[in-house]
Amino acid sequence: MVQSMPDASPAKWHLAHTTWFFEEFVLARFDRAHRWRDERYRVLFNSYYDAVGPRHARSQRGVLSRPSLEEVAAWRRWVDERVLALVGRADEEALATIVLGTHHEQQHQELLLTDAKHALSSNPLQPAYAARAAPAGAHGAPPLAWVPFAEAVVEIGHGGGSFAFDNETPAHRALVGAFALGSRLVTNAEYAAFIDDGGYEEPALWLSDGWAEVRARGWSAPLYWERRGEGWTEFGLYGSRAIDAHAPVSHVSFYEADAYARWAGARLPTEAEWERAASQRVVEGNFVESGRLAPAAAGSGLAQLFGDAWEWTASAYLPYPRFRPLRGALGEYNGKFMSGQMVLRGGSCLSPADHLRATYRNFFPPAARWQVTGIRLARDD
Amino acid sequence: MVQSMPDASPAKWHLAHTTWFFEEFVLARFDRAHRWRDERYRVLFNSYYDAVGPRHARSQRGVLSRPSLEEVAAWRRWVDERVLALVGRADEEALATIVLGTHHEQQHQELLLTDAKHALSSNPLQPAYAARAAPAGAHGAPPLAWVPFAEAVVEIGHGGGSFAFDNETPAHRALVGAFALGSRLVTNAEYAAFIDDGGYEEPALWLSDGWAEVRARGWSAPLYWERRGEGWTEFGLYGSRAIDAHAPVSHVSFYEADAYARWAGARLPTEAEWERAASQRVVEGNFVESGRLAPAAAGSGLAQLFGDAWEWTASAYLPYPRFRPLRGALGEYNGKFMSGQMVLRGGSCLSPADHLRATYRNFFPPAARWQVTGIRLARDD
Amino acid sequence: MVQSMPDASPAKWHLAHTTWFFEEFVLARFDRAHRWRDERYRVLFNSYYDAVGPRHARSQRGVLSRPSLEEVAAWRRWVDERVLALVGRADEEALATIVLGTHHEQQHQELLLTDAKHALSSNPLQPAYAARAAPAGAHGAPPLAWVPFAEAVVEIGHGGGSFAFDNETPAHRALVGAFALGSRLVTNAEYAAFIDDGGYEEPALWLSDGWAEVRARGWSAPLYWERRGEGWTEFGLYGSRAIDAHAPVSHVSFYEADAYARWAGARLPTEAEWERAASQRVVEGNFVESGRLAPAAAGSGLAQLFGDAWEWTASAYLPYPRFRPLRGALGEYNGKFMSGQMVLRGGSCLSPADHLRATYRNFFPPAARWQVTGIRLARDD
Amino acid sequence: MVQSMPDASPAKWHLAHTTWFFEEFVLARFDRAHRWRDERYRVLFNSYYDAVGPRHARSQRGVLSRPSLEEVAAWRRWVDERVLALVGRADEEALATIVLGTHHEQQHQELLLTDAKHALSSNPLQPAYAARAAPAGAHGAPPLAWVPFAEAVVEIGHGGGSFAFDNETPAHRALVGAFALGSRLVTNAEYAAFIDDGGYEEPALWLSDGWAEVRARGWSAPLYWERRGEGWTEFGLYGSRAIDAHAPVSHVSFYEADAYARWAGARLPTEAEWERAASQRVVEGNFVESGRLAPAAAGSGLAQLFGDAWEWTASAYLPYPRFRPLRGALGEYNGKFMSGQMVLRGGSCLSPADHLRATYRNFFPPAARWQVTGIRLARDD
Repeated sequence: MVQSMPDASPAKWHLAHTTWFFEEFVLARFDRAHRWRDERYRVLFNSYYDAVGPRHARSQRGVLSRPSLEEVAAWRRWVDERVLALVGRADEEALATIVLGTHHEQQHQELLLTDAKHALSSNPLQPAYAARAAPAGAHGAPPLAWVPFAEAVVEIGHGGGSFAFDNETPAHRALVGAFALGSRLVTNAEYAAFIDDGGYEEPALWLSDGWAEVRARGWSAPLYWERRGEGWTEFGLYGSRAIDAHAPVSHVSFYEADAYARWAGARLPTEAEWERAASQRVVEGNFVESGRLAPAAAGSGLAQLFGDAWEWTASAYLPYPRFRPLRGALGEYNGKFMSGQMVLRGGSCLSPADHLRATYRNFFPPAARWQVTGIRLARDD
Repeated sequence: MVQSMPDASPAKWHLAHTTWFFEEFVLARFDRAHRWRDERYRVLFNSYYDAVGPRHARSQRGVLSRPSLEEVAAWRRWVDERVLALVGRADEEALATIVLGTHHEQQHQELLLTDAKHALSSNPLQPAYAARAAPAGAHGAPPLAWVPFAEAVVEIGHGGGSFAFDNETPAHRALVGAFALGSRLVTNAEYAAFIDDGGYEEPALWLSDGWAEVRARGWSAPLYWERRGEGWTEFGLYGSRAIDAHAPVSHVSFYEADAYARWAGARLPTEAEWERAASQRVVEGNFVESGRLAPAAAGSGLAQLFGDAWEWTASAYLPYPRFRPLRGALGEYNGKFMSGQMVLRGGSCLSPADHLRATYRNFFPPAARWQVTGIRLARDD
Repeated sequence: MVQSMPDASPAKWHLAHTTWFFEEFVLARFDRAHRWRDERYRVLFNSYYDAVGPRHARSQRGVLSRPSLEEVAAWRRWVDERVLALVGRADEEALATIVLGTHHEQQHQELLLTDAKHALSSNPLQPAYAARAAPAGAHGAPPLAWVPFAEAVVEIGHGGGSFAFDNETPAHRALVGAFALGSRLVTNAEYAAFIDDGGYEEPALWLSDGWAEVRARGWSAPLYWERRGEGWTEFGLYGSRAIDAHAPVSHVSFYEADAYARWAGARLPTEAEWERAASQRVVEGNFVESGRLAPAAAGSGLAQLFGDAWEWTASAYLPYPRFRPLRGALGEYNGKFMSGQMVLRGGSCLSPADHLRATYRNFFPPAARWQVTGIRLARDD
Repeated sequence: MVQSMPDASPAKWHLAHTTWFFEEFVLARFDRAHRWRDERYRVLFNSYYDAVGPRHARSQRGVLSRPSLEEVAAWRRWVDERVLALVGRADEEALATIVLGTHHEQQHQELLLTDAKHALSSNPLQPAYAARAAPAGAHGAPPLAWVPFAEAVVEIGHGGGSFAFDNETPAHRALVGAFALGSRLVTNAEYAAFIDDGGYEEPALWLSDGWAEVRARGWSAPLYWERRGEGWTEFGLYGSRAIDAHAPVSHVSFYEADAYARWAGARLPTEAEWERAASQRVVEGNFVESGRLAPAAAGSGLAQLFGDAWEWTASAYLPYPRFRPLRGALGEYNGKFMSGQMVLRGGSCLSPADHLRATYRNFFPPAARWQVTGIRLARDD
């Protein structure tokens, strides 16, 4: 039930909200026999859909001691049964909405873990979510190499034939200049060198808004890092432990990713550059199914495009040319957030594997740090 | 575990904090064999004692999903056993501190209920704490009468011989002019008349700070009141129900009490006036032991001095002449809050009966409304 | 025209507001031929009188580039002429209001200087208001002595026969216990010793609200003090200069005065104690007429009761028994501020001499520091 | 000297800051004989250059009653003389910096007017900057037409050969899909129809951040609009007057421009689309030299690309591919603001004519409204 900040929701709320999604958008629209389980849940567990009606304030999700976990679980079973019963007789739009609901649920599976991590980190006891830490990697990170790409007009976005969110469409052509992409994510050791070199004290490395955040919030390291003697510890789902030098740095904001890149004489890739590199690749990597629950050292080649840590891009989250949001209230799913946020690509170690694809566009405000967000470099070639 | 605002603590926290009080101030100081149950609890459950050391932020008490309720309960048993074992061999100071701890616990018994009420009220489902409402009163409130008191030099404060908090001492003489005291608390019906007369729209009735609060917070009725058709409902430990016209109004701030009194052509009593009237009386009234959990209509005579609702006085909470706080960290119990607050007297329907006395000084900031606070009038005679 | 904080008004605004006071409360009420000079000035220069109508926001006084200084000056002459013409034919209430207007103007004469001092201090150039500093005192401060007073029932407040503000009335009897009053104000050197002894780092010396202010605002010395090498400089109307060790400390909040007193093993006097000591004394001291514009070292005996620096008392600003505010809008002058503030007594080096008397009650919030506020100690005897 | 909000600077500050720019970046770097006029001005009038050193807080520019206007004017003459003397013997970098300084000064010429407008609007007297209103336009606005453009790879950005800011470079190729551009800016009458249709009450028209602004700030019309009977007035440099139905709407935020476009079944153009349309055009329009000081009705054809009102684009302000900021402190001029802002194109009626060009990129946060900002529509074709 803990809500440790307005952005992070209690685990029970995630369970209830994903249930609400199916009742509101599937059962109420497509099941003629539908009667609301409890009309008041429509307000309590609506996240941000203005067209659906009023909603309980986001920052107050932690006060909902009722309905109890048992009541929410019963409601979930009730909804599940009815959705499953509907599948057999559902039309195309109903089926598409059920599929959307399952992808929505996958997003909340990841958020449930990142929010629980934040909640546990807010407790001075620093309790661990999982009892036993992941085994250390079998190998260190390979040296950073640069993978070159020549200028080309490429197709960006999702062309149909399988599920995609509306914000990935339509597929369209874009001119992408020559560039080189870093072969792996930036490691904890590399990021620690940035800190040791005074990265957090040098305004010339930072965007103006980023520097303002650094000073207002007193940032001097990634979220969850703590100086311990000569080194650093990092809080995670295994509790607090020494950072893994070879694993990718995570829990950095866009501003930190951008400042690091400038310090390293490089830059962040645009989302078109990233997609160009990823579009021919198999989606494989360190996902939540691995059970590792933390980023791991890279393998060889162009590594870690998927999994490990979401990769901040240099691209603002904006509509693709000729973008049309879904009709009705579901049009609020993605489209209305297309200002003030940055695009992230590739997924993290807490993402479900089959939730991801090369065209997938995640987005967060540039100061957000509680997601598993890391850094891949690019440079002009 | 819910913390619905910084001022209101989770129930589990109250259990832990009162336990902490005994471990920190009794066992650690007077039990030579004492070993800390968990040193980290010293930080987590310290409320405001700077001399004891650092503390977990007040506004973040709701994030403490650990220790669990079971762990807190086990800790309470552990502490209880040791305190009980100590009683037989305790010296005078140790015994006095144990007694202080029990009075401290009584205060938190009341806070636990007021905080739970606030937490439940923050949930749009408006869940009830108790399943069945109290029986309606057998009678209506008698008409308001005025009980006169002549000018006199009286003794104010606690003269010893039984337990009192340091802020009630020393007993001292004070010149109290002639005045008359309202025979009972102001009722819900009377307060509703103030609202209907535009009381919340007329700045001339309000202190400047009070008027600023009215506008900034949009106050138009007591906390927990809601307009329903022609009448009003009030949220309470029994959920939402129609106001009881004859019962005392409660959950008003000092500013509202003061504005009501001005509207009624009266004023609030000073704490010396109140104590003069109460000092010869038996402590009896509507307390938590009644199981009623809400204020009830007054009886005849000078009624409701104790119980029902805390009575805002016109007195700022300041030290008595020659006041000396307790020595050491316990000196922070009361003394350091002697600015910016107003004195309340008499206790409420949620107070334990044997916690109260005529010299008891409660205190809250003038805008506080979540305690069971009501209005008794006075006037110059 | 500078407004360096919401509490401090531009000099031009003070000129216009005191003019407004005469037009609004004298001419418009008592001059039958009155026509408004400009109705819009009623809004622009109303300070806080709700009964008069709406007003320009306090924090936005600095944006009023119109009316120009010349227009304000012409308006003042226009109002002055009409008020003077009215004097000869005015009835008692009109005359009383004119007299009130002159005392109101004296208050703003002092505020004009304290606000100008704050405005100039906000400029990194630290410009001086007056070109040449006051001559150093001819002598040092005498040692602090304690002047004893026996318990007595005394008359407090103003009994009529000459001008007083409504908040000084009615005269009434009060029982004042035995006490001793410090013979002079606390000096800069004494206050520097408090700082050197860690006064700003020791929570046990502070009221809880005061300690919160210390930490939130980073207080480590009086307003306008700056550490320079081994010593301190103080910004004042003569610019920045070394503190005068023998002169009274000023620009401290109530919280600092209270903490200093605790550190010194003393306390602040109540306003009744102060008035008891001052009531038989001639009003003489270091006032604005001296042209010195800064506090000066004390003479012998019970010194500095008037002038030099306003003296924080231990008394909250509350109504006297049977207090009645002036009728009508002028009732807002003092009465509505009787919560959340502390009483100060005696006047400062920026007060006009004939503005003061033993019954005069000034009041400011406990965190205010931009007035010339200092410390006199008292102790139980 | 008025500073009516942190974003808007006093006129005197603009004069001083543009002077500071020449002393800091031209004289101090390129004039060997340079001695600082007053070293303290380096802090007072530095706007945002971290590499230069500390600076006076932006929100506190209004408190600088010193240096006086006369002192600033004398300083300007002093700097002007020395810069002019330097021109004859300046090397290429010095000359380029002097040219940059003149373009910087042009930007502040426009800001000086927009900031003065805001300052005057904050005064309830609503004083006019200019005594006599501009003559009404000779004609109404022509009907909105759509000018089509076919898909093409075009060159975007400034290729050299004349002055440009670093953020306009380097020139690069971009693929711009087919689109149609509105032939003129959206008029006041058209925008009033959006308001009348409930535009400010319908969340479906707004980006999420925009809707949050609408509610938090109570927006219901453009800045400076006021409902008067059936119609609207608009405050401007001529004071308050009825809106001109045919003139372009101005003083709308990006969020309002975006919501209007959605309501109109269109969208905002990207900056590449805008530049494609403008790149072959002569820079002509309604600029500050016209003396009109307000937007005017459009002429025929693809009108108002330059002048009248800055046009919000759908493009976030981001670096062009291979962008390199200027070396040294001047690299902070534009580059560090490349997050959280939107690009505007074309200039306004308060811009100097020769300050503009087709590649010019202006930028403001999406909620900014005090600049002369308007709306041009685009649509997919």
